[in-house]
Amino acid sequence: MTTVFVLNGPNLNLLGRREPHVYGNTTLDDIETLVREKAGTLGAAIMFRQSNHEGQLVDWIQEAGAQGAGVVINAGAYTHTSIALRDAISGSGAPTVEIHISNVHAREGFRHRSLIAPVSVGVICGFGPMSYVLGLEAVHHVMTERARQAKPSQH
Amino acid sequence: MTTVFVLNGPNLNLLGRREPHVYGNTTLDDIETLVREKAGTLGAAIMFRQSNHEGQLVDWIQEAGAQGAGVVINAGAYTHTSIALRDAISGSGAPTVEIHISNVHAREGFRHRSLIAPVSVGVICGFGPMSYVLGLEAVHHVMTERARQAKPSQH
Amino acid sequence: MTTVFVLNGPNLNLLGRREPHVYGNTTLDDIETLVREKAGTLGAAIMFRQSNHEGQLVDWIQEAGAQGAGVVINAGAYTHTSIALRDAISGSGAPTVEIHISNVHAREGFRHRSLIAPVSVGVICGFGPMSYVLGLEAVHHVMTERARQAKPSQH
Amino acid sequence: MTTVFVLNGPNLNLLGRREPHVYGNTTLDDIETLVREKAGTLGAAIMFRQSNHEGQLVDWIQEAGAQGAGVVINAGAYTHTSIALRDAISGSGAPTVEIHISNVHAREGFRHRSLIAPVSVGVICGFGPMSYVLGLEAVHHVMTERARQAKPSQH
Amino acid sequence: MTTVFVLNGPNLNLLGRREPHVYGNTTLDDIETLVREKAGTLGAAIMFRQSNHEGQLVDWIQEAGAQGAGVVINAGAYTHTSIALRDAISGSGAPTVEIHISNVHAREGFRHRSLIAPVSVGVICGFGPMSYVLGLEAVHHVMTERARQAKPSQH
Amino acid sequence: MTTVFVLNGPNLNLLGRREPHVYGNTTLDDIETLVREKAGTLGAAIMFRQSNHEGQLVDWIQEAGAQGAGVVINAGAYTHTSIALRDAISGSGAPTVEIHISNVHAREGFRHRSLIAPVSVGVICGFGPMSYVLGLEAVHHVMTERARQAKPSQH
Amino acid sequence: MTTVFVLNGPNLNLLGRREPHVYGNTTLDDIETLVREKAGTLGAAIMFRQSNHEGQLVDWIQEAGAQGAGVVINAGAYTHTSIALRDAISGSGAPTVEIHISNVHAREGFRHRSLIAPVSVGVICGFGPMSYVLGLEAVHHVMTERARQAKPSQH
Amino acid sequence: MTTVFVLNGPNLNLLGRREPHVYGNTTLDDIETLVREKAGTLGAAIMFRQSNHEGQLVDWIQEAGAQGAGVVINAGAYTHTSIALRDAISGSGAPTVEIHISNVHAREGFRHRSLIAPVSVGVICGFGPMSYVLGLEAVHHVMTERARQAKPSQH
Amino acid sequence: MTTVFVLNGPNLNLLGRREPHVYGNTTLDDIETLVREKAGTLGAAIMFRQSNHEGQLVDWIQEAGAQGAGVVINAGAYTHTSIALRDAISGSGAPTVEIHISNVHAREGFRHRSLIAPVSVGVICGFGPMSYVLGLEAVHHVMTERARQAKPSQH
Amino acid sequence: MTTVFVLNGPNLNLLGRREPHVYGNTTLDDIETLVREKAGTLGAAIMFRQSNHEGQLVDWIQEAGAQGAGVVINAGAYTHTSIALRDAISGSGAPTVEIHISNVHAREGFRHRSLIAPVSVGVICGFGPMSYVLGLEAVHHVMTERARQAKPSQH
Amino acid sequence: MTTVFVLNGPNLNLLGRREPHVYGNTTLDDIETLVREKAGTLGAAIMFRQSNHEGQLVDWIQEAGAQGAGVVINAGAYTHTSIALRDAISGSGAPTVEIHISNVHAREGFRHRSLIAPVSVGVICGFGPMSYVLGLEAVHHVMTERARQAKPSQH
Amino acid sequence: MTTVFVLNGPNLNLLGRREPHVYGNTTLDDIETLVREKAGTLGAAIMFRQSNHEGQLVDWIQEAGAQGAGVVINAGAYTHTSIALRDAISGSGAPTVEIHISNVHAREGFRHRSLIAPVSVGVICGFGPMSYVLGLEAVHHVMTERARQAKPSQH
Repeated sequence: MTTVFVLNGPNLNLLGRREPHVYGNTTLDDIETLVREKAGTLGAAIMFRQSNHEGQLVDWIQEAGAQGAGVVINAGAYTHTSIALRDAISGSGAPTVEIHISNVHAREGFRHRSLIAPVSVGVICGFGPMSYVLGLEAVHHVMTERARQAKPSQH
Repeated sequence: MTTVFVLNGPNLNLLGRREPHVYGNTTLDDIETLVREKAGTLGAAIMFRQSNHEGQLVDWIQEAGAQGAGVVINAGAYTHTSIALRDAISGSGAPTVEIHISNVHAREGFRHRSLIAPVSVGVICGFGPMSYVLGLEAVHHVMTERARQAKPSQH
Repeated sequence: MTTVFVLNGPNLNLLGRREPHVYGNTTLDDIETLVREKAGTLGAAIMFRQSNHEGQLVDWIQEAGAQGAGVVINAGAYTHTSIALRDAISGSGAPTVEIHISNVHAREGFRHRSLIAPVSVGVICGFGPMSYVLGLEAVHHVMTERARQAKPSQH
Repeated sequence: MTTVFVLNGPNLNLLGRREPHVYGNTTLDDIETLVREKAGTLGAAIMFRQSNHEGQLVDWIQEAGAQGAGVVINAGAYTHTSIALRDAISGSGAPTVEIHISNVHAREGFRHRSLIAPVSVGVICGFGPMSYVLGLEAVHHVMTERARQAKPSQH
Repeated sequence: MTTVFVLNGPNLNLLGRREPHVYGNTTLDDIETLVREKAGTLGAAIMFRQSNHEGQLVDWIQEAGAQGAGVVINAGAYTHTSIALRDAISGSGAPTVEIHISNVHAREGFRHRSLIAPVSVGVICGFGPMSYVLGLEAVHHVMTERARQAKPSQH
Repeated sequence: MTTVFVLNGPNLNLLGRREPHVYGNTTLDDIETLVREKAGTLGAAIMFRQSNHEGQLVDWIQEAGAQGAGVVINAGAYTHTSIALRDAISGSGAPTVEIHISNVHAREGFRHRSLIAPVSVGVICGFGPMSYVLGLEAVHHVMTERARQAKPSQH
Repeated sequence: MTTVFVLNGPNLNLLGRREPHVYGNTTLDDIETLVREKAGTLGAAIMFRQSNHEGQLVDWIQEAGAQGAGVVINAGAYTHTSIALRDAISGSGAPTVEIHISNVHAREGFRHRSLIAPVSVGVICGFGPMSYVLGLEAVHHVMTERARQAKPSQH
Repeated sequence: MTTVFVLNGPNLNLLGRREPHVYGNTTLDDIETLVREKAGTLGAAIMFRQSNHEGQLVDWIQEAGAQGAGVVINAGAYTHTSIALRDAISGSGAPTVEIHISNVHAREGFRHRSLIAPVSVGVICGFGPMSYVLGLEAVHHVMTERARQAKPSQH
Repeated sequence: MTTVFVLNGPNLNLLGRREPHVYGNTTLDDIETLVREKAGTLGAAIMFRQSNHEGQLVDWIQEAGAQGAGVVINAGAYTHTSIALRDAISGSGAPTVEIHISNVHAREGFRHRSLIAPVSVGVICGFGPMSYVLGLEAVHHVMTERARQAKPSQH
Repeated sequence: MTTVFVLNGPNLNLLGRREPHVYGNTTLDDIETLVREKAGTLGAAIMFRQSNHEGQLVDWIQEAGAQGAGVVINAGAYTHTSIALRDAISGSGAPTVEIHISNVHAREGFRHRSLIAPVSVGVICGFGPMSYVLGLEAVHHVMTERARQAKPSQH
Repeated sequence: MTTVFVLNGPNLNLLGRREPHVYGNTTLDDIETLVREKAGTLGAAIMFRQSNHEGQLVDWIQEAGAQGAGVVINAGAYTHTSIALRDAISGSGAPTVEIHISNVHAREGFRHRSLIAPVSVGVICGFGPMSYVLGLEAVHHVMTERARQAKPSQH
Repeated sequence: MTTVFVLNGPNLNLLGRREPHVYGNTTLDDIETLVREKAGTLGAAIMFRQSNHEGQLVDWIQEAGAQGAGVVINAGAYTHTSIALRDAISGSGAPTVEIHISNVHAREGFRHRSLIAPVSVGVICGFGPMSYVLGLEAVHHVMTERARQAKPSQH
């Protein structure tokens, strides 16, 4: 059974309570419910966490890597400033999908560059809470494919 | 019933035959099959097309907009150079999802900037042929949501 | 009698039907009517065309040059990306006036740079459909002046 | 009856006497005559002025705004360096058309950027003294349109 | 008794009459009243002036320096373009506080850079007319401190 | 009664003990005393805190927002690198004043850009410990104004 | 027997008729004659084509790749703007030599960067029509070498 | 007896377990052993620590400064993004040597710039675990020299 | 007999009274004396002027051009910001030598670029008041040469 | 009979002995042989030289110019850094062809810019030792053409 | 026994005689003594040389490579401008350590970029003459390790 | 008696024989004559030299410094690329005047930046051979002033 860490970066705990014109009305708890529902249909275990601390997110990515888990990460502002997260992703070896609720390319210029995208498997952004669901589906697909390829044929 | 134009830009007709280390072995025909399967489960009609001509892609996006259809587009090289595609997307009003097979952020610098992302609903990249399936799912979700919100409540 | 090619680039066929807050409600047909009225008072023949294809626009500019005609061009998105149009204008020798309906300098940064302006006679932008009328007036004035200077004095 | 300030920036008093290969042989007095002729046919009053002082031009734009007049401005070198002129135009509310005698886009790079274009209604450049006539026509057209729209319908 | 020159740059004479969504409804006369009230409580003499001319502002800063006065300056557009003002401030030796009514960092990019900030004592921006009052308080505080330190101890 | 969080970023606990030629001799405790004195005259409650951890500062800003408090922040080095702080300020809705002890514009280039200034109400820098006092005065003024405007008139 | 596609981009059909000070008096037909003469001595078949359409050039490069042919391409303006051509060259696997009639490095800055050079075998520019002859010689040499290396030794 | 803090930044706890082609097989524990051996021969006390938290590293540098200790720091990713570390080093006054296991100049562009190098005594990179040993030797040499120069001569 | 305008830009009236570590102790009056002495030996008439107003300097350059005089100009801060001065120099046709008292290349980066140097005959900087004397010598030499070449030979 | 200097810059003496994956196995002596063979068929005299010294290459280019010889130059690293070579080429008047063994556009960014290309007749790169042969052919063709045009017609 | 070339670039012969505030009082002879002492303890032969000529340094690096020697190089100013040195290092295959006496990162911006660092084994800077000693130690360590790994195990 | 080294960089030996439209017809020998005449009137000894080798120029500047001589240098192309010359000037302590025959600011962009200007006393350019004479006058003036100030007063 695959395990996926769904990690949320700084200020995502404010979701649904502030700036609804940008992020909508769904709270992070609502999103966790959506993610767990999808995980149920996929048969995946979920570790759902949020922190405002860059170092904490690095710790968690390393933890995911050590467990052979996958990562869906909405790194929020750290997406654009943290080489530490980037090194954690490439160093931990955990297959990682970067997601964003809003379409970051339609916002301020400094949100167009992601430091973690080059070491992630892929990126999904702009679909609101649905970005999490798609991200989970994507990382699950990738992990299943890799497991299938790694399994020696039996005949 | 929703209609989705799945549009493919320049050189995607070579898919599966050239540079498999970058794009894999799946051909564009294989992808069309995958997309139609997913469309079947979603109950969506698919217009699946490819062209090496920027102007042709502009024509098709306008056609989608005129029909009230959605667009999943892998614009290939034109992603990075075509303001005409951008204007077609914003001008046609068709809800559009930008996708890529490879993780463009892990490739050459000139592939990091997308001219069409800011006017798309969202972006999905890096999951191989699965990017098309996720893109279809995403645009279908967005169109369903919009239709639901536009429909007057009946009680 | 002077001939003027009035050429319209990508997405201008959508005019008046989409994004009226940027481009107003006038359609390209309305503009053709305005242009032909003005041409009537100036005694000029008009070739009025639109295409979403960069290569088609290059063909038409060459055609204008071969006929000794002038050009009024609203190259739309290609204004900012097409060196091919630039080379067509300078190569064909057709006196060309670049026009825009909106004030491109009040829009996104990538619309501030025109690749064709340096090889055009001049530029007119920001006056809505009136930009076409002024553009026609300008190119007609330039062609008349040049014809007058080229004519050997008769005494 | 509409009033239009036709303002001329630094060194335009040298017109017709220096660098004829760039600016032609017409003097600023000749241009004033052309402008007044055109104004006669349009039924517009003209305030025609020139100054080498940035602050003086700011004063005049404010004066135009206070009188509800329009502005046709050839700001010369200040086009490229003066945020003060920009703020005067947007602050005064006077509908303003930026013009140039030469095609600034075919000259040095530092003449390609206009600080006042984004707050002007539109821009006209490259047609020699004819740029003034077209500019007057354009601002008169804009002011007439605005007046017509502002007038309450009478039935 | 300390003297403070409160200097206002281009277009600030329009204050309260134009663009109230950016600058509010307070006029420059209202601000002078506020400043004089505060000066009364501080025991400072005020020279309150406005000019659209860069050279005039340079003259006044030199005048302040020659009198041993301090300067509170809202240089408006010249903040971003005038090295002459910068040299006047550093050359005159007058302790200077740069102020702005609006938060310039939340506006266009070209308003983010101040040429005079590096030679000023400090900067205050974003508090509407209150910026003037705080600026006066700040320069008065600085001048008082310097005077105190310069005075030889008496025992 | 208004509450104001006075937040101090990394290395501000060293104040007064290191690099006095840049920051002076006043310690952070001295500043707290000054701030509390001013708060007494304004009738404001003060939460005075310091941390070297970016995530901790994000937490505190969110806490201030949740309490309807204002913020005076000297974010130190994080001013120039933290988008997380920026998002916390805009996300929490707490009216925020950015302050600095030294004049950051007279120091290294990388200190000239503030990531939090665009989402703050305003900025004050260069007046030593007095920057805190002015910042408190400013945020108190802003909060009082907003409260006054939000209060329904009573007659 | 080797086949070589000699492809010509936008405006090269104007050759010899316009701007002789830049491109000389030789027409594209003259060049075709030169190329066919050289091909005769090398024993190579030539496909000589020109188009103003980017998509058409992409089609032809793919066609060359499918036939195992080599390519000599003077992509004209598309050299500097077309990532689609670049992808066609690398995707088709056709050994490609980029050529130019004029020395592009002695012209405008935007002609100094070639998007297709990094995926071509090599570049030749500046020798007038002779560039085509040298390009043909070069691609023929490369193809012969590769064929020789691919052929298994016979003893 | 001198004390040296040997500080390790984010992801260095993964050393020897991940990406051996970049960082080799030595673990951080192995490095600690090497460092303590060298420290034994030099007669220096070692504080050997690792954290993924930027703020924690700032705390430790301040601690080193307060104890009069030297610092050898491999700040990992924070080398390139943390002005807070820079300010901690210059603010704490601790003589600091920046080290890296790999040659950062042979890696991605964003690893070429160090924010802490300008305030460090010097930099050593590229020698694998040996970088730590050389860094310890260097900081010990610097501290010994400074102590010798500070000691008053005794005759 | 040749006439030379020696023009001084903003803040040069402060010379010798402020910032002697940059500009020395010589006043502008002292310099005028030096210049007049040199002019005496060369047999040249001198117009020695200073203004803080950009427009005034433009007026004077035009005046020099109209009289066939040469110009030695220390444009101070306007050197780096004034395209208007540049246009005045090239438009007036007056042979102009740009001078500076200090070595501008050893100062702030924004003083390294001169907008007027490209249209001046030459530049002299760094020699204190001696820069004026050398500048006068240079412009006199240039004017004499030109006069000699323009004079028809008499035999 | 034409003479051609074939000049080789720094490190080209290592050719064939080092980094064969970039430069192949051919030595500089092998290349000299190839060049002399080709020269034999063309009837040209060859001066074949190599130096690691920039000044030596400048000397040789001047020598070529003085003799009316042509130049084929592989300037190696100096291609990208030496304005002195550029000036030597334009100053000597020797028709010069720049060549490279590898395709410099497919290598590091700093090898994409050539300082000597703008003053050369043309550039050839990417064809291994064949680049020398093509370069010789090209310069010989250019010199023959020029000689033919310079020769007065005889009838 | 290993041999190490210790190479010194331009102006290092002035060491200890000029600018002691930057480089200290130690002469290059003193450094040679220090280096030879260290070499004695390591059992390494030293070739200690200095030249102001870039080409000479290229020659010496090639010589080192040909002998299988290592290199410690203080390339002085050529560090920042010489691609020729870079190519010599990578072309010669000599394991090379870049060193500097001063901390180049704390000096002018143009000294922050090293062209030779990416092809060196590692870099050491900022420790005065001690940088040479550490550099020798480092290169000796690297050469010893490589020799050990290259030696076939004997049992 | 003062000694002045008049140093000439690469390609200046071609002077008067090549590109007279840029550099005029005067040869370097003519210039030496002019310089020696002026030196005669000033009572200065002249060392007049030219080299195409950067290292040679470094040697000569060091030689000048060692003799207490001044330097007038026309470094030609090395002006824009040589940090080694810069370090030689600042390291040798020789008072240096940078000169150019042409007005470098009116030429290509890469000639606008001088690496040696910031460490020279001053710069003179644009006056043809007269630049040398003015440069000699300037350096002689500077050396005389310094000698006068260094001489202890005698009463």
